[in-house]
Amino acid sequence: MAKSNTTTGPDARLPKGFQDTSAEDLRATARMLARIQETYERYGFEPLETPAIEFTDALGKFLPDQDRPNAGVFSFQDEDGEWMSLRYDLTAPLARYVAEHFERLPKPFRRYAAGPVWRNEKPGPGRFRQFMQFDADTVGTDNIAADAEICMLAADTLEALGIKRGDYLIKVNNRKVLDGVLQSIDLGGEEHATRRLSVLRAIDKLDRLGESGVRQLLGRGRTDESGDFTPGAGLSGDATDYVLGVLTGAVLRPDGHAAAGLKRNPTLDAGVQELAEIGKLVRASGFGEERIRIDASVVRGLEYYTGPVFEAELTFEVKNEEGHTVRFGSVGGGGRYDGLVERFLGSKVPATGFSIGVSRLQAALAVLNAEKPVANGPVVVLVMDKSELPRYQKMAQALRQAGIRAEMYLGSAGIKAQMKYADKRGAPCVVIQGGNERERGEVEIKDLVAGAKAAASIKDSKEWRQSRPAQVSVPEAELIAAVRDLIARQRG
Amino acid sequence: MAKSNTTTGPDARLPKGFQDTSAEDLRATARMLARIQETYERYGFEPLETPAIEFTDALGKFLPDQDRPNAGVFSFQDEDGEWMSLRYDLTAPLARYVAEHFERLPKPFRRYAAGPVWRNEKPGPGRFRQFMQFDADTVGTDNIAADAEICMLAADTLEALGIKRGDYLIKVNNRKVLDGVLQSIDLGGEEHATRRLSVLRAIDKLDRLGESGVRQLLGRGRTDESGDFTPGAGLSGDATDYVLGVLTGAVLRPDGHAAAGLKRNPTLDAGVQELAEIGKLVRASGFGEERIRIDASVVRGLEYYTGPVFEAELTFEVKNEEGHTVRFGSVGGGGRYDGLVERFLGSKVPATGFSIGVSRLQAALAVLNAEKPVANGPVVVLVMDKSELPRYQKMAQALRQAGIRAEMYLGSAGIKAQMKYADKRGAPCVVIQGGNERERGEVEIKDLVAGAKAAASIKDSKEWRQSRPAQVSVPEAELIAAVRDLIARQRG
Repeated sequence: MAKSNTTTGPDARLPKGFQDTSAEDLRATARMLARIQETYERYGFEPLETPAIEFTDALGKFLPDQDRPNAGVFSFQDEDGEWMSLRYDLTAPLARYVAEHFERLPKPFRRYAAGPVWRNEKPGPGRFRQFMQFDADTVGTDNIAADAEICMLAADTLEALGIKRGDYLIKVNNRKVLDGVLQSIDLGGEEHATRRLSVLRAIDKLDRLGESGVRQLLGRGRTDESGDFTPGAGLSGDATDYVLGVLTGAVLRPDGHAAAGLKRNPTLDAGVQELAEIGKLVRASGFGEERIRIDASVVRGLEYYTGPVFEAELTFEVKNEEGHTVRFGSVGGGGRYDGLVERFLGSKVPATGFSIGVSRLQAALAVLNAEKPVANGPVVVLVMDKSELPRYQKMAQALRQAGIRAEMYLGSAGIKAQMKYADKRGAPCVVIQGGNERERGEVEIKDLVAGAKAAASIKDSKEWRQSRPAQVSVPEAELIAAVRDLIARQRG
Repeated sequence: MAKSNTTTGPDARLPKGFQDTSAEDLRATARMLARIQETYERYGFEPLETPAIEFTDALGKFLPDQDRPNAGVFSFQDEDGEWMSLRYDLTAPLARYVAEHFERLPKPFRRYAAGPVWRNEKPGPGRFRQFMQFDADTVGTDNIAADAEICMLAADTLEALGIKRGDYLIKVNNRKVLDGVLQSIDLGGEEHATRRLSVLRAIDKLDRLGESGVRQLLGRGRTDESGDFTPGAGLSGDATDYVLGVLTGAVLRPDGHAAAGLKRNPTLDAGVQELAEIGKLVRASGFGEERIRIDASVVRGLEYYTGPVFEAELTFEVKNEEGHTVRFGSVGGGGRYDGLVERFLGSKVPATGFSIGVSRLQAALAVLNAEKPVANGPVVVLVMDKSELPRYQKMAQALRQAGIRAEMYLGSAGIKAQMKYADKRGAPCVVIQGGNERERGEVEIKDLVAGAKAAASIKDSKEWRQSRPAQVSVPEAELIAAVRDLIARQRG
């Protein structure tokens, strides 16, 4: 709203990267979260909530310096001068919690958590500084069955949300496979960090660019359709063949090494062995290739993963911002992180987990479901006569007691504005009692949904007044029954 | 856990005033919030969520200064140097939202919101720096029916939570009545601010100290049982009689002024008139004195209230920390605040609302319900033979698919520790399949609830082994049916 000239008050606005959430979106989110929660509970996970604020050193990773305390996270100093931060994910607070209560927790400890996290980063389209995550983690076991279970959990969760088999895929890789590959082509060690990153970035693009595109990026480089050149990792032809041999999956068969004639090393072997076990476990529980698939091209960004990594991908196609048809893509992921609790306790506490990006998943569901909005606003009792407020209020209250959303119009405007208000609220109907109806002991009920349809087909305003479509008079004692019928008809 | 000597990592701890919330508490809170939400929805309120962070100037009231930016609120500077803060309540963000979207909102605008708020204050017992509020507000109307409706909403909400009629009271007063009283005894004006506060503090204690105690506090002062002296407001005898005359309610009857011979003024008259209308409206909707009561002694702290104020009080008795029997007291409150949106728009936007202190209300429900915990943990499938993980995992998965919470034990410990783990998880039963059972195609199901009871009555360990109480063998194909029966029996 334009500001009045008489005020010198603050601007009514939000900082960039933050947003308000409407009733409609909140309802859709609540439905979605309830189904995720149901699935997580069924798998034996227990809810845990930690506060928004933690000591900065407990969160780790992002340590503020005096000059720029807010790099990456929102931080502030306690009265005692200690730095505190808003959590940037739900995993770091979990590690703090487990370390703090290690002795008394059942082990393994399975918890789920849903809540906002904050990032003090440059906001952009679809990039917010507050967003929601929904995590499940199993802490205190190195059993590979825990990783297999997380994959099953992810697949079952997506189906519980109405995403059909074939429209999603849980991809599983192992950090050890990637590390082993890099060792085999002599890119281990600190001095090769930059080239390693180039190789991983190239691998990450297999889905999008296919084998030939990745081959270019592993070698000299690649020129895309727009003419832009991306320099390559500079691998030799043999090394490129080797990497692509692993990516295309031969290594992941029990006889993979021999078949592809690949160089072996203990790290690669361990990774391959773990993936084989995950495959065996999920197949035994009835999860086929079309739901959970081993895929050596999955690269998850976070430094802290130490073993299996997971990516939940939606495989159906949507138009992107430029109008191109693309796969919807990732809605969540995770992996094994054996070092996070160790930071506190000094001894190893293995853990594995999975995190859903709530708003991204919700965007996907909106595409899939495209639900037609129903009039789920409250019934509005109009105020025809201000001296009769108690009478109207009583009608609204009677409807509420019958379990029907209802309200008396509380503004001061006339009947036309009241009708507009009811429309804006998504009211299924309005209840009207003027002097004449009151004398007859009646109320009129006007069906706003049917009324809108009728209005579209009637052009003559005289015809309209005479036919009075979608409007009925009933004795006051029948108000509740009549409104209930009307709503049931609308929901049909 | 004691820290290992080998680590130099951070301490695993939370800053003071913050807390983790357990699964049990989260479940109780979720049940409570769902019922509050249902009631608010029935009254026609719509959900709205605003982010945790706002510009500090938009929140108002607490303006940070450079030396001590965190007085009262948690604040930090944007990269552009603008101050942002964590919200300290849900009303200030609502005012910002309404001002920002004024033109397109239905008016009156009814919204509810639940979420954490943060206060950068000294924490103490029961005083946290992050806590939850649950608010309902009607913005954009000065109709007194909106205030009446908030009182009805509060009463219906408490009953929806299982609090019996007679165990709670919604008390209503009007800031104008208190202001009018203060004017009548010549305590208006800036120069009397301190004495006004003394008078209001004395009034606030009518419930606890009764008429004679308040009389002392309005006059010279009062010595309590421990011998401590509280100086009084120093009112004359006449002024004291006058204030007590208003408090004890005569003024709130239609003929109150005449009956009590009280001095009148326009502010007092307006307040009395509004309270009379609220009374009429709530009575017409069937809310009696035992649910909503006009009470001139209600003083709400917040400066911004401008008209009716509400207090939701639980009237049943509990023991306090010193072992004294006291009324449980306030679990929420609110009132009319006509100035908050005006800060932004420069024109008046009247509003009224109500806020529930979620953890305080939950403490009350815990006293009232004292629910017996049931074993609602997952069924635990024990691992008797590590080479058979896929088989055990499949059993867990079959139980989940039947809608039963279940998990395979994921740790590496022996059978005794696995049983302990299942106990700690609150498992209704464990599923056991060793080599012998497998050969017979059977599983054993051990009822942990019945088992614990039996254990209490059997002393002889030989007798125990022979009778094997609460343990049955069933064919593997009957696993689900047998577990389902067992859980149904436990929940009885």
